[in-house]
Amino acid sequence: MVKLKLDEQSTDRVMIIQERKTMTIKCGIVGATGYTGSELLRLLCFHPQAHVAVATSRAEDGRRVDDYFPFLRGHVGGLTFSNFNVSALSDCDVVFFATPHGTAMTMAPELLETGTRVIDLGADYRIKDVDNWSTWYNLEHTSSDWVAKAVYGLPERYRDDIKSAQLVANPGCYPTAVTLGFLPLLDTLNEDQILIADAKSGISGAGRKANVNMLLAEATENFKAYGVSGHRHLPEILQNLSSAAGKAIKLNFTPHLLPMVRGIHATLYAHSHLSLEDTQQRFEDYYKEEAFVDVMPLQAHPETKAVKGTNMCRIAIHQPQDQGLTVVLSVIDNLVKGAAGQAIQNMNIMFSLEETTGLNMPALVP
Amino acid sequence: MVKLKLDEQSTDRVMIIQERKTMTIKCGIVGATGYTGSELLRLLCFHPQAHVAVATSRAEDGRRVDDYFPFLRGHVGGLTFSNFNVSALSDCDVVFFATPHGTAMTMAPELLETGTRVIDLGADYRIKDVDNWSTWYNLEHTSSDWVAKAVYGLPERYRDDIKSAQLVANPGCYPTAVTLGFLPLLDTLNEDQILIADAKSGISGAGRKANVNMLLAEATENFKAYGVSGHRHLPEILQNLSSAAGKAIKLNFTPHLLPMVRGIHATLYAHSHLSLEDTQQRFEDYYKEEAFVDVMPLQAHPETKAVKGTNMCRIAIHQPQDQGLTVVLSVIDNLVKGAAGQAIQNMNIMFSLEETTGLNMPALVP
Amino acid sequence: MVKLKLDEQSTDRVMIIQERKTMTIKCGIVGATGYTGSELLRLLCFHPQAHVAVATSRAEDGRRVDDYFPFLRGHVGGLTFSNFNVSALSDCDVVFFATPHGTAMTMAPELLETGTRVIDLGADYRIKDVDNWSTWYNLEHTSSDWVAKAVYGLPERYRDDIKSAQLVANPGCYPTAVTLGFLPLLDTLNEDQILIADAKSGISGAGRKANVNMLLAEATENFKAYGVSGHRHLPEILQNLSSAAGKAIKLNFTPHLLPMVRGIHATLYAHSHLSLEDTQQRFEDYYKEEAFVDVMPLQAHPETKAVKGTNMCRIAIHQPQDQGLTVVLSVIDNLVKGAAGQAIQNMNIMFSLEETTGLNMPALVP
Amino acid sequence: MVKLKLDEQSTDRVMIIQERKTMTIKCGIVGATGYTGSELLRLLCFHPQAHVAVATSRAEDGRRVDDYFPFLRGHVGGLTFSNFNVSALSDCDVVFFATPHGTAMTMAPELLETGTRVIDLGADYRIKDVDNWSTWYNLEHTSSDWVAKAVYGLPERYRDDIKSAQLVANPGCYPTAVTLGFLPLLDTLNEDQILIADAKSGISGAGRKANVNMLLAEATENFKAYGVSGHRHLPEILQNLSSAAGKAIKLNFTPHLLPMVRGIHATLYAHSHLSLEDTQQRFEDYYKEEAFVDVMPLQAHPETKAVKGTNMCRIAIHQPQDQGLTVVLSVIDNLVKGAAGQAIQNMNIMFSLEETTGLNMPALVP
Repeated sequence: MVKLKLDEQSTDRVMIIQERKTMTIKCGIVGATGYTGSELLRLLCFHPQAHVAVATSRAEDGRRVDDYFPFLRGHVGGLTFSNFNVSALSDCDVVFFATPHGTAMTMAPELLETGTRVIDLGADYRIKDVDNWSTWYNLEHTSSDWVAKAVYGLPERYRDDIKSAQLVANPGCYPTAVTLGFLPLLDTLNEDQILIADAKSGISGAGRKANVNMLLAEATENFKAYGVSGHRHLPEILQNLSSAAGKAIKLNFTPHLLPMVRGIHATLYAHSHLSLEDTQQRFEDYYKEEAFVDVMPLQAHPETKAVKGTNMCRIAIHQPQDQGLTVVLSVIDNLVKGAAGQAIQNMNIMFSLEETTGLNMPALVP
Repeated sequence: MVKLKLDEQSTDRVMIIQERKTMTIKCGIVGATGYTGSELLRLLCFHPQAHVAVATSRAEDGRRVDDYFPFLRGHVGGLTFSNFNVSALSDCDVVFFATPHGTAMTMAPELLETGTRVIDLGADYRIKDVDNWSTWYNLEHTSSDWVAKAVYGLPERYRDDIKSAQLVANPGCYPTAVTLGFLPLLDTLNEDQILIADAKSGISGAGRKANVNMLLAEATENFKAYGVSGHRHLPEILQNLSSAAGKAIKLNFTPHLLPMVRGIHATLYAHSHLSLEDTQQRFEDYYKEEAFVDVMPLQAHPETKAVKGTNMCRIAIHQPQDQGLTVVLSVIDNLVKGAAGQAIQNMNIMFSLEETTGLNMPALVP
Repeated sequence: MVKLKLDEQSTDRVMIIQERKTMTIKCGIVGATGYTGSELLRLLCFHPQAHVAVATSRAEDGRRVDDYFPFLRGHVGGLTFSNFNVSALSDCDVVFFATPHGTAMTMAPELLETGTRVIDLGADYRIKDVDNWSTWYNLEHTSSDWVAKAVYGLPERYRDDIKSAQLVANPGCYPTAVTLGFLPLLDTLNEDQILIADAKSGISGAGRKANVNMLLAEATENFKAYGVSGHRHLPEILQNLSSAAGKAIKLNFTPHLLPMVRGIHATLYAHSHLSLEDTQQRFEDYYKEEAFVDVMPLQAHPETKAVKGTNMCRIAIHQPQDQGLTVVLSVIDNLVKGAAGQAIQNMNIMFSLEETTGLNMPALVP
Repeated sequence: MVKLKLDEQSTDRVMIIQERKTMTIKCGIVGATGYTGSELLRLLCFHPQAHVAVATSRAEDGRRVDDYFPFLRGHVGGLTFSNFNVSALSDCDVVFFATPHGTAMTMAPELLETGTRVIDLGADYRIKDVDNWSTWYNLEHTSSDWVAKAVYGLPERYRDDIKSAQLVANPGCYPTAVTLGFLPLLDTLNEDQILIADAKSGISGAGRKANVNMLLAEATENFKAYGVSGHRHLPEILQNLSSAAGKAIKLNFTPHLLPMVRGIHATLYAHSHLSLEDTQQRFEDYYKEEAFVDVMPLQAHPETKAVKGTNMCRIAIHQPQDQGLTVVLSVIDNLVKGAAGQAIQNMNIMFSLEETTGLNMPALVP
């Protein structure tokens, strides 16, 4: 028998244990072959009190999940993709919609009527102004009642509402990074300015669909802006910031495509009356209770790789050349804090678990 | 209070839990700023019964680990790099040497004399023939006594010896992938052949040191062979295969450098008298009790990404055009099963833990 | 006026000049939106005696080429994609088919009947044994007469026949790299061996088509073998080698997919009775008149980046551990020497131009 | 003999020809092993009226250039690296300094005294205010006389002065992309604003030196800002813009590091009183005579890959949501228009050649 030397300074740490649970949150995933769906499958492997009971896919109906996704061999038992089926899904405690916009608003209401809780990772329930949504998404909205009942799933803003929500509209990836970066500044802004959010995203943000522009041979060793004249995440960001500021905010949002897989870096520009030190303090105070927002030391440069595969948002503050312009750097993993991880964070809140449950791993570096 | 629906089919799964442990394996890492060192730091965050008490670095002595590695912020407490110190390290239950060859043979013996258990991730204790080692590494060996006592840390071959070993020589990355791929074939080989191991490695295998050839601008969008006339992992592979076969094996080993970070893919060629089906069965039988060797279905093509960040080795078998030539495809993550993960697997065995403890996560895909 | 210092040692060099030519080779490209088609468009910008008069694309009919391919702005005048039209194409001196297999055999014959010369970059006319072709391509061949008349466009083997050919079957990318690497060895081989060609290709070899597996998020940071049990380039390589050897050659061909855009690296294994020095001499002699085969110094390691964007094949020879096994390393750019560049080399031969015309640029490094 | 069909519509096009020249510009390159040095070597292979006679490198003195850079085999004859030698260099018509800052100011003056013309690709002669230079570069300036005589080598601004300059200070990469993007807007700006230049660069901009942070394993699949509080290209950009505007300009410059080799994308934000259409017209007029600035159609999204390996700057204009904010997208290849290509453009101007000579190739896509 091995005798261990005792370590008195051991502290709280993340641990993986192998054990049989008889009671866990039973999860369904609608659209489990896309990137946010597969990321839910991946992340839920780490969760001690949740497991995936249903994973839907029209195209892969009947196929074993670990045959389609060999990286999950050994982690999902005999789970098999099935067609969307309200009865099977309503047997779940919570159902994630990892579907393109337009799907959840069509398919979720029937499920919601059964009392099942739903977290929509798509865009359907995020914008409160349904007409505005229809303009940006070029589609009539067919579930406006549920829009009204949906809670926007940004825990740092709406934690209390999320607890009891039946339907959570999980935020978009860009809106998460941009909103968290601007929130503490909103009541310090000079009047009449246009905030600028120059944002860069890894290509997994474009989804897992056949598209010539997203081929490795097209997108690697390349960088470009896109949707500069108007991107669908703009109204969502404006709703977030205006709601938090209590007045209409003006914003320019310019997204760019990075030649890499995961990560969003938002570079944010705002004219504020606070000094650098006061701004730093403001951010540290604002997020001091948050497990998933890390305000780095003054003038740090957060890197996307330092959050790869994790639910963390890292933020740093600069005021170059004392010109009254604050530059906020905000990074997340678009598939985790920008999608599946935040959805699980919301699930933890909805089911009264510790908010970090199953989400507290370090980044995969290098 | 939330009421969960019960799930009767829940099975063994990986879980992360947050809890305070008072008794854990106290680990030291010598050379904690390199890639195998930082990978030990990363992986041990997932381990429920081990923690890092000492991390040495000459260059970063006195600096907080999470200041040097921001991706570890929130995961290593106030752990600070320190200089190599036998007294501090001998207070650990186990010390990992994550150092270039030549270091452990100089610094480990004094520590071993204190009774501390050591796992050397470098090359110093792998080759039993000390003269052969000196020839390949172009260095006199100064610790041949401990070479004799060291156990080669390939659990699939030497599990029983590892249990009680004081010094484990953790295998090299290429030798792990190549050896696991050839082992089940060794007693089926036709006579007088030269086995061929055409191996490709991600660039993290070259270590974390300033080297113009490893710059992104040099190494991305490029592929080449290197060390074709003789690579230091050749004698290690030959020792493994000849020892298992009970006779001298001839082998050509050709390594190549991949324009990516993690992953080894070994493509192995052997003339065997077994049919495809019998070969497949042979592999499945050979590894059926192994948690970290996954024999895939006949004619699969394992991908390095499906093991990224994990301790798994995935293998598939082909016999193209029925020519009597068996092609084995064997993939690992060079930093995990090829280094730090296998070291933790050895630690688990040495300390009588479940072998998979802290190592059972899925790959980071995409 | 600037006075230049004279340089007496100036030698033959590549030059770009801007001038108006009244007589040039008029080229047509069928399938100009794929990678081999766009590479023809790109490379022909450098050619002083050829220009593109017709570029066909069903999907982009009527669209300006430089609108579809902004990288060609300023280089293709007002050239516009058009539908396939025999009359317009027959007005060209030469027509390149940059189309998937099955297309040229359907559309080229009518054009050939008009006397127009054709270079097919697809697979339709490469395999002389039409039944064998049908087996591998799973398609009935509809143009076997022209198969018989076609000349295989590997200049290093068939230069004289290419001069007067009306139809040239441009070699595949893998077959070019593998054949050039084995050719000088063929009459030195030990009996009864299976040659091994372990080949790795950049992803542009898979073509420019929407395919989830080729997305950046799927294919970057990943490496795998594919088609191990049988790839369509195998019969082409076997035909080349057996024809040159004057007897049936046995070969294992294992292709792999690299996480990068351009480049093939073939690692070739053969048992030969020649010494290393004699093998090196054999290669240097064999290719001493060739502009596009560079036999590197003994034991060099050619890199794919050193041929990126060029028509060069670089080769190096090793005999590790004096075991009688020769390892040949052969690299090309799959889109140039493996496709469009070799096609232009063939055009130069067909039209009695200097073979290197328009093809003599250095690689894009870094 | 082949009979060509005549093509009446043939137009001006780029051509490579192979011919012997007896009179060409004799070039020297100081610091020829770095990225801007090797890019000069590469690009001058395409130049019909210039060749490299001297290439210096302390570390590689005496080594053949094509042994050090195998991608140049066949393109640089027997050219051999030599130590810096004023006598040998003064025999050249023009000498390029491809050296880190601090070198040219030390070594160029002696050469300039011989009457040799010099183009410095480093930073030493760019900033007219020597004290300001010293502050940013943390180094005393030792060649202020020549600073006064140097001409800033941005042809679009200083073409006439460049013609007769003996010393040209070749612009930095970021300053080229940012300055060209702002120039046409300068007299349309609203008062009292801070212009914003959010710029992203490929990693070759960091130079070819051993640096752990630039390793592939560190820098790929990652994105971050750097030098946000102050980057050395800021004073150069301010000098350019203020000089052109005729008054002090305020600017925030935030550089970021892209996980790729070549390319700069500057995203520029300015409050202007011009409408979108008028802005577009302004840009088209401003650059209508320029061979190397391509104003793309309204609302295009230029990509860095579309200028890879070329001397082109592509620009597009947006005014999202009609808020009075103009967004200019400006892309270049940092090693070409941002360094070696622009230096050759300057050489062409200095020696009364057509400005595009040797520089008119399309980008390497894909």
